[in-house]
Amino acid sequence: MFRGIAELIHMDSPNRADFLEGWKPGGKYDGIVAIFRRNFSAAKIGIFNEELINGLSPSVKWIAQMAAGYDPVDVAACKKRGILVSRVPGAVNDATATTALFLIISTLRQFSKAERDLRDGLWKSRLSPSNAHDVTGRTLAILGLGGIGLRLAELAHTFSMRIVYHNRRKVMDVPDWCEFFEKDRLQEMLGMADVLSVHIPLSKDTERYVDEKMIRALKKGAIIVNTARGGVIDEDAMIRALEDGHLAGAGLDVFPREPNINPRLLDLPSVTLLPHMGAGTGDTKKKMEIVALKDILDFLTKGRGKNVVPEMRDWVPV
Amino acid sequence: MFRGIAELIHMDSPNRADFLEGWKPGGKYDGIVAIFRRNFSAAKIGIFNEELINGLSPSVKWIAQMAAGYDPVDVAACKKRGILVSRVPGAVNDATATTALFLIISTLRQFSKAERDLRDGLWKSRLSPSNAHDVTGRTLAILGLGGIGLRLAELAHTFSMRIVYHNRRKVMDVPDWCEFFEKDRLQEMLGMADVLSVHIPLSKDTERYVDEKMIRALKKGAIIVNTARGGVIDEDAMIRALEDGHLAGAGLDVFPREPNINPRLLDLPSVTLLPHMGAGTGDTKKKMEIVALKDILDFLTKGRGKNVVPEMRDWVPV
Repeated sequence: MFRGIAELIHMDSPNRADFLEGWKPGGKYDGIVAIFRRNFSAAKIGIFNEELINGLSPSVKWIAQMAAGYDPVDVAACKKRGILVSRVPGAVNDATATTALFLIISTLRQFSKAERDLRDGLWKSRLSPSNAHDVTGRTLAILGLGGIGLRLAELAHTFSMRIVYHNRRKVMDVPDWCEFFEKDRLQEMLGMADVLSVHIPLSKDTERYVDEKMIRALKKGAIIVNTARGGVIDEDAMIRALEDGHLAGAGLDVFPREPNINPRLLDLPSVTLLPHMGAGTGDTKKKMEIVALKDILDFLTKGRGKNVVPEMRDWVPV
Repeated sequence: MFRGIAELIHMDSPNRADFLEGWKPGGKYDGIVAIFRRNFSAAKIGIFNEELINGLSPSVKWIAQMAAGYDPVDVAACKKRGILVSRVPGAVNDATATTALFLIISTLRQFSKAERDLRDGLWKSRLSPSNAHDVTGRTLAILGLGGIGLRLAELAHTFSMRIVYHNRRKVMDVPDWCEFFEKDRLQEMLGMADVLSVHIPLSKDTERYVDEKMIRALKKGAIIVNTARGGVIDEDAMIRALEDGHLAGAGLDVFPREPNINPRLLDLPSVTLLPHMGAGTGDTKKKMEIVALKDILDFLTKGRGKNVVPEMRDWVPV
């Protein structure tokens, strides 16, 4: 893909100190113009916060984040240094929406608990059909109707679910059966929902956006599904609502302090828990790599890649 | 529902001997004309095989089986005794197809293994995205395109899956995108499938219908999903194919010797196992009860209920 266009240098730093050392004049990374970032690099060198970004060579002009969410990259710090940031928006929609649908089915139908009981030799002796609900015909509230939320709406529509959503603004070009609820009707929307599925990005503005008040506005017996980021829900408030029975269950792919899981969640019978693998398929990873690398290629050959983060969409570094 | 029409007698036998005793002249069940049968009664009195049916009073003229499958009721024995058998065909379609879709997603995406690992404190350290596959775009082979199979086809179509099916005969009035493969092209169909989902009833003719030869005809890396009956698959052949890697996984709601599970299945990492709860929701149970009881009501008031089993459709007891 880059043959004859650019040289590829592999990031091999075992820790953050080694990484930052490499960007100093004459260091092993000095002179690099674009970075292809994957989330698992954080395990070795940490997230791309202001300190890390300020440690990069001035040669760096592009960071391609290989994920839909780019909360591990400090966009404001990048802007100050004249670095454009791209991410991969559409490629994860289908895989992540599939994960959300899976969590909805698992939680409404009690399948996670059922499988655990079966593997404990209990067959279905501890299950009650009256606690298991059909997906079909229920009301699904989607918080954030971007690409993932809209794909979930399509999948849920096949189940004849009623689809209601809240978004900063009404989304145009969506089917009629996606019913928009603006901010001053948010409580009303939550009161109708059997399922609340969260699809908003994590930022300072959205931290703990789903708070005690929103959770209590949900109908008794509703469930919450989160495939976005753990930090957008007030986890303590959600766990209290699960423990006291206000919520009938939860399906979670993301957690505020991943990979650590709040042990109170593990004790609840009616939650389905996945280790943040919403988009984690070989097929989708391949699609995402191509999109992220294509943005770098376009930057190198045409001056700018396509999938710049929204905050930088109209910005041209000088 | 039956007020003024019939008296209801509750089956309270703790075992088969007590049950059979009750049907003798002057016994507690003598004179009953219709039986509303639920599968869980088998735990106490056993299935409705020839012995049990021959022990009923001659007064019995109707057995309403509250399930889609009626393999626990010996229809031939009923016929000899002049008893009509009804079952509940459509009510379970959506709930069972949802279970099949859940098992497809769980198995292709490795979600069951992922949740077990997470609960064992391993986060996703033992998972490889290259073993996890998107549902979207794969080929789904449906064995038996009745109501459940067709509903699964609809759900899978939203994932842009290619839908191929085999059935005794081509099913009319189904969408064009359901591609029929007749018997002499069955091997070809299996060779195309990423997922084989089984939806045929259990009978003497279909026992171990999915045999070694069919399983080996599947493409390497395919998965099998079964929400029909455990007995329609040769379980040993399937487990061998899972153990030697010919099959990448299986999603099973039913087992040949329920509630006993073959321990070799529990040792396989890539299987999702549910305790026969395909239609096990409060919502669907309620729908099924109404259908089954309505057949009895129609028998009592009009002489015949609607949902007679296919073998008796054109038969009138004399």
